Amino acid sequence: MTPPKTAETSVPVHPLLAQRWSPRGLDATHALDERAVQALLEAARWAPSANNSQPWRFLVGRRGDDTFTRLLGVLAPGNRSWAHAASALVLVAAQTVDDAGRPRPWALFDAGQAVAVLSVQAEADGLSVHQMDGFDTDAARHEFGLDAELTPLVVLAVGRHDPHAKLPDPLAARERASRSREPLEALLLAAPGAASRAA
Amino acid sequence: MTPPKTAETSVPVHPLLAQRWSPRGLDATHALDERAVQALLEAARWAPSANNSQPWRFLVGRRGDDTFTRLLGVLAPGNRSWAHAASALVLVAAQTVDDAGRPRPWALFDAGQAVAVLSVQAEADGLSVHQMDGFDTDAARHEFGLDAELTPLVVLAVGRHDPHAKLPDPLAARERASRSREPLEALLLAAPGAASRAA
Repeated sequence: MTPPKTAETSVPVHPLLAQRWSPRGLDATHALDERAVQALLEAARWAPSANNSQPWRFLVGRRGDDTFTRLLGVLAPGNRSWAHAASALVLVAAQTVDDAGRPRPWALFDAGQAVAVLSVQAEADGLSVHQMDGFDTDAARHEFGLDAELTPLVVLAVGRHDPHAKLPDPLAARERASRSREPLEALLLAAPGAASRAA
Repeated sequence: MTPPKTAETSVPVHPLLAQRWSPRGLDATHALDERAVQALLEAARWAPSANNSQPWRFLVGRRGDDTFTRLLGVLAPGNRSWAHAASALVLVAAQTVDDAGRPRPWALFDAGQAVAVLSVQAEADGLSVHQMDGFDTDAARHEFGLDAELTPLVVLAVGRHDPHAKLPDPLAARERASRSREPLEALLLAAPGAASRAA
């Protein structure tokens, strides 16, 4: 039985956000057509960014093509064990320096925004995204000839969730576990009062 | 007349993503109740993050309260000129170091994800978010006693878009301008072929 994965929130949030999670169990028979990939990238493209700098870059491989195979090859073995069933693997990099050589301090932040909206679009399209930071960034740099101003951040496994997919055991247990988050209070910063400021 | 602000995409993307933009013209009479603020924060809370580290922190002021006034005070004057009409100002910080002192390389990236999903929730609730990097981070650190492991990133102006709001002139022109993005092709990294890899 599929466990309940919907976020437990104190007030309702939009279903596309509440229902999104990051399964590893993906349908190895599902294929993403060009149009579906394009919808994900268009969503990311229209994310907000500092001064509209759009510092996000994507390298897309679809299962069966050469880029997919090479992206799979740079993943940590633990990720390779399930991500081979993804319909697409997407390397996400941030352009941390602009064309004039000036640093872009919000590049990582903005790349995160692009990936988050890509993930919302995926959810709307009945797809799931699992972000992996477990990959060899040096190997990715070398394999794909990434410029120095690009910082590889994550590889996205995009596919159709399959609750019956076979996963190696520690991952299978994590797949069944409830989702959890810190309580909301733990995320809130308190503004010290005027008195303590003066102290 | 309000200009069309819907994203121009080669394939349709979800309306919550296509219609989101970052207005400066906000309704100075609109108030956000506690429940609406909570929905935004719950959405952010359930964003994905590296190893579920949840490195995002929020300081929320609602128009009329002390925190709002103090957040307004650390904004660049150009932002203060319109952001005073926001219903809430939210300082977003990333926790770039964990409790054991280890760096969190994905903290900025993940904080960006949290802000993006907060913005999707806002759109779903008929609210708009304008992210500002134009603020005095040192002043914010001092004013709110932020720990060293927190990196203040942006202040969000959250409110209800008012197309008739008066804005100072350069901002009024930007408010009327079409939205634009790089062409999708410019965001795609090409995988060099096996031949060039061998070279």
